[in-house]
Amino acid sequence: MGMTMSEKILAKASGKSSVKAGEIVWVNVDIALMHDLLGPWLVDGGFRRLGGKLFDKDKVVVVSDHCTPPATVQQADILKFTRDWARNHDLPYYYEFEGPCHQVIVEHGHVRPGRLILGTDSHTCMAGALGAFATGIGSTEMIGVLLTGETWLKVPETIKVVWDGKLKEGVYAKDIVLKTIKELGHAGATYQTIEFSGSAIKELSMDERLVLSNMAVEAGAKTGLIEPDETVVEYLRSKGVQDEIELFASDEDAVYSHVLHFDASELEPQVACPHEVDNVHPVSDVEGKAVDQVYLGSCTNGRIGDLRIAAEILKGRKIAKHVRCLVVPASQHVWMQANKEGILTTLTEAGCIVNMPSCGACGGFTSGVIGAGEVVMSSSNRNFRGRMGSSDGEVYLGSPATVAATAIEGKIADPRKYLSKEVML
Amino acid sequence: MGMTMSEKILAKASGKSSVKAGEIVWVNVDIALMHDLLGPWLVDGGFRRLGGKLFDKDKVVVVSDHCTPPATVQQADILKFTRDWARNHDLPYYYEFEGPCHQVIVEHGHVRPGRLILGTDSHTCMAGALGAFATGIGSTEMIGVLLTGETWLKVPETIKVVWDGKLKEGVYAKDIVLKTIKELGHAGATYQTIEFSGSAIKELSMDERLVLSNMAVEAGAKTGLIEPDETVVEYLRSKGVQDEIELFASDEDAVYSHVLHFDASELEPQVACPHEVDNVHPVSDVEGKAVDQVYLGSCTNGRIGDLRIAAEILKGRKIAKHVRCLVVPASQHVWMQANKEGILTTLTEAGCIVNMPSCGACGGFTSGVIGAGEVVMSSSNRNFRGRMGSSDGEVYLGSPATVAATAIEGKIADPRKYLSKEVML
Repeated sequence: MGMTMSEKILAKASGKSSVKAGEIVWVNVDIALMHDLLGPWLVDGGFRRLGGKLFDKDKVVVVSDHCTPPATVQQADILKFTRDWARNHDLPYYYEFEGPCHQVIVEHGHVRPGRLILGTDSHTCMAGALGAFATGIGSTEMIGVLLTGETWLKVPETIKVVWDGKLKEGVYAKDIVLKTIKELGHAGATYQTIEFSGSAIKELSMDERLVLSNMAVEAGAKTGLIEPDETVVEYLRSKGVQDEIELFASDEDAVYSHVLHFDASELEPQVACPHEVDNVHPVSDVEGKAVDQVYLGSCTNGRIGDLRIAAEILKGRKIAKHVRCLVVPASQHVWMQANKEGILTTLTEAGCIVNMPSCGACGGFTSGVIGAGEVVMSSSNRNFRGRMGSSDGEVYLGSPATVAATAIEGKIADPRKYLSKEVML
Repeated sequence: MGMTMSEKILAKASGKSSVKAGEIVWVNVDIALMHDLLGPWLVDGGFRRLGGKLFDKDKVVVVSDHCTPPATVQQADILKFTRDWARNHDLPYYYEFEGPCHQVIVEHGHVRPGRLILGTDSHTCMAGALGAFATGIGSTEMIGVLLTGETWLKVPETIKVVWDGKLKEGVYAKDIVLKTIKELGHAGATYQTIEFSGSAIKELSMDERLVLSNMAVEAGAKTGLIEPDETVVEYLRSKGVQDEIELFASDEDAVYSHVLHFDASELEPQVACPHEVDNVHPVSDVEGKAVDQVYLGSCTNGRIGDLRIAAEILKGRKIAKHVRCLVVPASQHVWMQANKEGILTTLTEAGCIVNMPSCGACGGFTSGVIGAGEVVMSSSNRNFRGRMGSSDGEVYLGSPATVAATAIEGKIADPRKYLSKEVML
C-alpha cells in the first residue's frame, strides 16, 4: 500500500521503510526551532536539570521575534536571556530582529523537502509548503528534543484538499485557505495532515504556497504539506542552498481520510469574520463594515508578493481618514527588498505606516494592539477574541488585496474593483 | 530697562507693554498642546465638570505619539479615547502616527516666533528654537487652559548661554547642549529661561537648533530660546507658512541672571553617562564601554540632518555583531524624506532596524525597552534610572554621530575617526 508524503517523511525520520497513519513512531528531528517567548527562557531550567547538553547545535535554530522590539522590561529580559543562551551554547543559527521565525527559517534555507521540523509555535506548520513535516510542540516536549534529538509522534492521517482550475484576478492563496478552513471547520483536521494539491496549487508562487501551510493549523491540522517541485528548488537555490534537494510525492495509491475538491475559478475573495477563523464569508457579504485599523503583514501574508499586490492597489491612492494602516513586512529581508522596489515609498505615500518586522500586532502583545470596540481587517492568521488585543475588539481576516482595498475605503471592500480595467472609483 | 526675549513674549501674551522677571502675569495661550498619554484621557473628567467647552479649537493641538503603535490594550484604549475626543470636539489639528508631538507641531507650522505654547509634556520647550515661549504644564492646569485660554505664569529670569567660535567636524548641537548642561547642572536653570546665543548658535541649522531647546528642560529650564532669524523664516516658509513672521531679539540692556561663555572650537564630542544628564564627559573618557543597544532617533535627534550624519558614517560599513541599532525617525515626514534620499537603505544595509516614529523606546514603554544589565548609547534626551526600561540598565547619551560610531564598534566610540580624511579603520 502506498504512502502519503506525510507518511514518507515520518518513515524516513523513524528509520523505517514504511509507516502507516495511526502508528506511533520514534523520530529523529532535523530542526528544533524555538522563539524567544516560548524558548530558552522557558526550557532552560528543565534542560539544565537533565544534563544541559544539546543533541546537535547545528540542528537547533533560535529566532527572537516576539520580543523584538521589547515593549516591556520583561520582554527585554526575555530577549536578553535568549540572546545570551544562544551565545553560551555557541549556536550557529541564532536570529533576532529579522522577523517571525517561520519566515526566517524558510529564508535562511533551514527548511528542505523531507525534513522533520519541530518548533515551539503552532505556525511551524508553514514549512510544509516546502515539503517538510513541520509542526508545533510544547516547550516541555522541546526539552527532550534538545537533549536527545528524538521524540515520538503518532503518524497522522491525511486529508487531501484539491484545488483545480484557475484563480481569477483579485483572488489569492489566502482566499483558498479561508474557504478550505470554512469547509473543514476550525477543528476539522485535528491531528491530521492537510495535503494541498491540484492545478491551482501547482501554479502558486512560493510566497503564496506558504500562506496555505501557515494556516493549516487553523483547521487543527498537524501540518500542511504541498508536493515539492521546481518552484521549491528555485526558491531554495535563490536562497543559496547548494546541496541536493530531494523531491517526492504521495504515492498514487496512498490512503487519505478525506478528499475535498474545489474549483478555484469559482472562488471570490473570502473574509473570516469574528470570532472564528472558520466563520468565512464571501467579501460581498461583509462589504461596507467600517474598520479602525488595517494590518498588512505577518508570517502569513507579509511577503514581497503580498506587498507588491497591496502597492499595486494603493499606488496613487490614499487610505481613508481615521483609518490607520500598519504595514509589517514578514522579515527584514522582505523590508529591504520592498524598499528597493519602491514599495515602501508607495505605501507611505498612500498614508500607511511601515513598522519593523515583528510578531507584535498579529499576536496582540505589542506594536499595534487594538482597544475595546475597535475593528481590524488583517492579513494575519487568527481572529479569536483577544487575539490582537482587547477581547471587545473584532478581527476580520482577508488577503493583502482585500486589506489594501479596505484601507482605501475605511470599510471592508472588494479588491477586484481596484485591479480591474474598469476601475470603479 | 530692556527686556529679554522671554520677557517680550510674556509681555505680549499678557497684554502689557513690559514685564520683568519675577512678576506674575496672566497670559493668553496661543497653542495648547496635548499628547495621548497626558491629554484628553486624563483631562476629560475635570474639563466636562467645568463646562466642557474649548476656548478656541483652532488653538488646541492634540498629537497621539506615546501610544502609537499601542503595545497594550490600555494604550490602545487611550489612543482610541484621544482620537474620539478630537473628533467629538471637531479639532482641526489632531495628528496620530506622525511622530512625537514636539516635532509634529514644528513641522506643521504651529510654532511661530513670539507665540506662547503650553503643552502637557516637559519637552514642549523644544519650540523655543523658533523663538516661541514654550513650556510644559500639568494635565490639571491644562484643564483651565482648555476652558479659558488663559493661565498665570511667573516671568522667569534668563540665563544667557553664549557659544562663539566654530564647531569642529564631528561635533554637533548635541555636544553643545550636553556641555552646557554639565556646566549648569541638571537643576541649574530651574524656573529660568535659557537663551542660547553666539556665533556658533547662529550658524546652526533649524534641525540642530531644535536639539538645544529640546534639552533646555534637562537643566531644569522653563524654556530654551534662540533668537529667530532668517533660518527660522526659511524653515517656516518651507513648511507652507505664508503669514507675516515677526522677528525680535533681547534688548541690548536686557537683564540676565547669569551669562556663560563657551568656545565651540574647543569642544569635543560629549557623552552623558548614567544616571544623570549632567554627568557629562568627553567621549575620550568613556571610549570602549561595551553597549547592547544603540538608539538613533527621538524628538531630540531623529531629524533628517541627524539621519544624514549617521548614514554618512554607516555607509558601506556594518554595525557590530550582537549590537542592535534601532533607528526611529522623528516623524513620518522625516521617515519619508530619509527614504527618498536613500538613507533608510544605507542604514538597513549596515544592519540597522528602522522603526516607525514613536516616543516608545526613548520613554521606555514600547518599541525598544531595555532589560536588566543592558547598556544603551542613545541620541535621545534622558538617562535617569529606568528611563528606557529596566532600572538596572544604563543609558549613555550622545550625538547621532557618536551613536553611529558606537553602533559600528559595539563600544562607545569617537565619531571623528569615521568622518576624518585620515580614517582610522
